[in-house]
Amino acid sequence: MIRALLAPLAQNPSALGLQDDAALVAPPPGMDMVISSDALVSGVHFPVQAEASLVANRALACNISDLAAKGAAPAGCTLSLGLSEAWDEAYIGQLITAFGRGLQAWALELWGGDTVRAPTGFLSLTVHGWVPHQKMLTRKGAQIGDDVYVTGVLGDGWLGLQHVLGAPNSFADAQLAYSDPQPPLAFGQKLRDIATSALDVSDGLMADLDHLCAASAVGMEIDAADIPYSEAGQAYLAAGGQLENLLGGGDDLQIAFTAPPETEAALTALGQGTQTQVTKIGRVRATISGQPSAVLRAPNGAEIALATRGYRHF
Amino acid sequence: MIRALLAPLAQNPSALGLQDDAALVAPPPGMDMVISSDALVSGVHFPVQAEASLVANRALACNISDLAAKGAAPAGCTLSLGLSEAWDEAYIGQLITAFGRGLQAWALELWGGDTVRAPTGFLSLTVHGWVPHQKMLTRKGAQIGDDVYVTGVLGDGWLGLQHVLGAPNSFADAQLAYSDPQPPLAFGQKLRDIATSALDVSDGLMADLDHLCAASAVGMEIDAADIPYSEAGQAYLAAGGQLENLLGGGDDLQIAFTAPPETEAALTALGQGTQTQVTKIGRVRATISGQPSAVLRAPNGAEIALATRGYRHF
Repeated sequence: MIRALLAPLAQNPSALGLQDDAALVAPPPGMDMVISSDALVSGVHFPVQAEASLVANRALACNISDLAAKGAAPAGCTLSLGLSEAWDEAYIGQLITAFGRGLQAWALELWGGDTVRAPTGFLSLTVHGWVPHQKMLTRKGAQIGDDVYVTGVLGDGWLGLQHVLGAPNSFADAQLAYSDPQPPLAFGQKLRDIATSALDVSDGLMADLDHLCAASAVGMEIDAADIPYSEAGQAYLAAGGQLENLLGGGDDLQIAFTAPPETEAALTALGQGTQTQVTKIGRVRATISGQPSAVLRAPNGAEIALATRGYRHF
Repeated sequence: MIRALLAPLAQNPSALGLQDDAALVAPPPGMDMVISSDALVSGVHFPVQAEASLVANRALACNISDLAAKGAAPAGCTLSLGLSEAWDEAYIGQLITAFGRGLQAWALELWGGDTVRAPTGFLSLTVHGWVPHQKMLTRKGAQIGDDVYVTGVLGDGWLGLQHVLGAPNSFADAQLAYSDPQPPLAFGQKLRDIATSALDVSDGLMADLDHLCAASAVGMEIDAADIPYSEAGQAYLAAGGQLENLLGGGDDLQIAFTAPPETEAALTALGQGTQTQVTKIGRVRATISGQPSAVLRAPNGAEIALATRGYRHF
């Protein structure tokens, strides 16, 4: 059953029809390979009762988001699928069908993987992409004087999860941001020639900016009033919601990056060309007392101390 | 704690210090990449009470075995580690330490991965290797008149598992074949220029030979008396043990392959040079009634029908 469902998703030469024990990939000359792995476990990374399409979408998007922030083009993936005893045939069918739709949407090939029984369901995905040699965007390279930008809006991933969990007064509008995230892949590939540093916002905005600061040995000033939220996010804050939840929820899969001021017009044009919201939220400055971290400022200039800056993944 | 244990295992440039969300690999010119993924789940692929070193060894060996049978040289891997609540710090430490020893032994780099909480522990490993362009060994290519060979001995993986499980009258001598399998990696890389087809014996000898037959559209005759067993395996059979268990247990991680008769001396020399036992067990012939499968023959020529030919992985 599973073989019959997966085989049509692997009609590419590298997969060898999923008949062999390995995939075979001929690297295009002059390209580097970017590899990202994420494992999603039922009850840990998605609700046990989550729809199959949500699980497949998120597994793909978490890895595509890493490629996007590296400026890489998706190539192929291996999927190790732990089939929970709690998943019936219909659910597994929906999961694989949704995964196949995602592969098509992201132009990602299924190269191989493993399917195993598991008391707890999981998807362990390793995604491979190509980037021109030595052109990968990294966390290093932010320069004092650069501006700090973020794509999309922040907090909708967390708000969407609350809605999926059935939280009272949650925002249906935000659900898609959690159940079918759309990392800015086309934008990221064009960002290669503009940004000085980049990463995907997966731990929480301030925690992730701290990573950029540490890798680049700089500090940052972030203007809280400029951080972009959806209407749902604005309504949540207006109703007294915690800023920490929107900034630190960690499920947004957007790109934070730095770029020199003279590239602003090019970034605006790129955002329009790829239908990606791009917002300038601050600037890179020297570290203060050698501390490579980002400071969040209220409009009056006061520092906003967050109770938590984000979830720290390994 | 985990970061501190894993970081020293990833002192290669591709891993970017495990600080980034991705690994970066510059493919050597003229090489194809071979990719193999296996997921091992606690209680499914290894006993819940298994020692940490056994788990790490087997996770690596299952994937290295695929590379060996493809004639590929190990390059690097991503490890998604699902940390069971049942694993204490000491166990996790032993697991990662043993994994690091394995990486060194196989000359495999740790490029990245993910570490997650999981109700059931698992290791999902994706291993990448290099092989000269279009030189990968495949299941296709066995020619009528070729001989059929197997490396090592068969059945010790299954016998070793019985000992780990504490089965009565089990064979301590075979335990290492299960707890620390040694796929014939050096042999496999040299086999590229000799064999016409190859695969690793992971489903069970006869089932795996059927895969070679199907991919190559040939049949095979296998001489049961020539199949190599260890002293433990011979003792098990002499005591009335089931042949199906030795041939179909599926944990041997040896290579079955086909090669023209004129290469026999070269194979013997290669076996000696790489300290790999190599045994001729049969020959490739035309299919009978179009059936591409391997027939097992007793010394008197009678066909031996096995109750099961092997475990069929996805």
